[in-house]
Amino acid sequence: MKDVAAAAGVGLKTVSRVVNEESGVTPETAGRVRAAIEALGFRRNDSARLLRTGRTASVALVLEDISDPFSSAVSRAVEQVAAAQDCLLFTGSSGEQADRERELALAFCARRVDGLIVVPAGDDHRYLLPEIASGTPVVFLDRPAGGIDADVVLSDNAGGARAGVAHLIAHGHRRIGFVGDLPGIHTAVERERGYRTAMAEAGLPVDERWVDRGPTGRARVGEAVRRLTTGPDAVTALFTANNRVTLAALHHLPADRRPAVVGFDDLELADLLTPALTVVAQNPAALGALAAQRLFARLAGDAGAPARLELPTTLIVRGSGEVSP
Amino acid sequence: MKDVAAAAGVGLKTVSRVVNEESGVTPETAGRVRAAIEALGFRRNDSARLLRTGRTASVALVLEDISDPFSSAVSRAVEQVAAAQDCLLFTGSSGEQADRERELALAFCARRVDGLIVVPAGDDHRYLLPEIASGTPVVFLDRPAGGIDADVVLSDNAGGARAGVAHLIAHGHRRIGFVGDLPGIHTAVERERGYRTAMAEAGLPVDERWVDRGPTGRARVGEAVRRLTTGPDAVTALFTANNRVTLAALHHLPADRRPAVVGFDDLELADLLTPALTVVAQNPAALGALAAQRLFARLAGDAGAPARLELPTTLIVRGSGEVSP
Repeated sequence: MKDVAAAAGVGLKTVSRVVNEESGVTPETAGRVRAAIEALGFRRNDSARLLRTGRTASVALVLEDISDPFSSAVSRAVEQVAAAQDCLLFTGSSGEQADRERELALAFCARRVDGLIVVPAGDDHRYLLPEIASGTPVVFLDRPAGGIDADVVLSDNAGGARAGVAHLIAHGHRRIGFVGDLPGIHTAVERERGYRTAMAEAGLPVDERWVDRGPTGRARVGEAVRRLTTGPDAVTALFTANNRVTLAALHHLPADRRPAVVGFDDLELADLLTPALTVVAQNPAALGALAAQRLFARLAGDAGAPARLELPTTLIVRGSGEVSP
Repeated sequence: MKDVAAAAGVGLKTVSRVVNEESGVTPETAGRVRAAIEALGFRRNDSARLLRTGRTASVALVLEDISDPFSSAVSRAVEQVAAAQDCLLFTGSSGEQADRERELALAFCARRVDGLIVVPAGDDHRYLLPEIASGTPVVFLDRPAGGIDADVVLSDNAGGARAGVAHLIAHGHRRIGFVGDLPGIHTAVERERGYRTAMAEAGLPVDERWVDRGPTGRARVGEAVRRLTTGPDAVTALFTANNRVTLAALHHLPADRRPAVVGFDDLELADLLTPALTVVAQNPAALGALAAQRLFARLAGDAGAPARLELPTTLIVRGSGEVSP
């Protein structure tokens, strides 16, 4: 920078202003500084500067799969909060693998991100204790941490599922199937709990054959849906417990004799289907924004006890959940 | 690391193996090393190590909007190629603002990412010349760079649009509307070119009132669609030139008297609509993977001339494009 200042015949402060695009420099002077920068091959290097400040002005987000609409909406919201703090964002997808989640989280920490937001794939996060003890705040999103006490931002999964299933019951359904995610996943457990609560509150028994848990791939969900909706004991309604399950189920249900369906998570074209899809919508952008705000509050010195923040869900009535038995 | 080695009574190499999770250490020794690490508060720090190697093992991706399905599918594919190279990924959304694209790209370069993939919002990328000259490869995706010669990975936008419009013509349509993105955007220009080519090849005139370009928000697209599809001069078919335009158009077209529609870009529930949506699909995952492979080839020393790689699109016939005039 000294060489640039000398070549342009200006002070160091002026070079700094031009490089950081601050005001207070005439276009002529800025042009001279830029020409000197180009002639000397000077490039801004934040890494060294940031290492000196002890911050890297970067945060990281470990997601399940960035290409999933829930994850990408979370990511966009985190990015916006981070950008307002002049922070850049690393993102990584765990693919629902605990090992990969750990590998990514530790790799981000080893790159000295200022803070970390994790959508857990695993259920043991003690591996993050040294990072947290060293002053890297970690906020969990969508599912709580395992084995450690940390900030977490969640949707009201049980309450949302309960409302969705109660809606089916209010429309006359008694035999209601539940198709969920892998049984180890927090959100899957909570949504199943909401399903069982709604059934119990209506005095309805749950036949365990109505509850199907497993991977959310199309083949498994298709198999589950076929089994649940055919034969003399078929259910008259389905609660599909996340966006991927709902999508797979809709693809496998024959349009002409489809049971009532309420899905957890909204889908982009849900309102254009015939019938339009009734859903329990969560707000991924609000979850992401809240988690990021929590992270930056921690970075700003908030040393309060770990918080559990829960956002409400919204039942959106569109048609598929109001089909009679 | 020396302190950890001394405390655990092992050599430096053993500590390094445990920290980097390499094989060749017995579980007992590894446990001793981990206990020493915990006692001494040692954390892996890749930043310093990477600064010494001259690489940061990170790449960055500047997208339009990570929450858009096209962008998030690109991001996932780039991440997978980067992960195979032990590289972490920064992502940032320009929001279609040239200033923000530049700000993000330069911020990533100032953090010394090893390479950069940019979905351009602006049309002048000379600001990246100092970075490229200093050895940071830049690959452009979806739209070519402006003012510089650089690698670019594109879909065959004109060819895809031409095939989609020719499909409508083959089904008897003569008055076909085109609803596109902002006129400055490369993909919008190319897709309009494809539309005009198909019309010209069929000997059909284009009434300029049939061509509508602008922001892809629901209100503007709704206005355009209403104007194009009502009155005595209404078109009988619409070519909607990207996923957001298609979504907005479908929301505004009355289901009972909808013109034929072919959309550019596939949508997740497209096959479940009534009629199911005929689209010209591009392959965002293949675009992302190819751009990332190109970037790592450059990092591995490929010094060949900048390449322009174009991927074909696929016409997926489902019903909405086969409606008669």
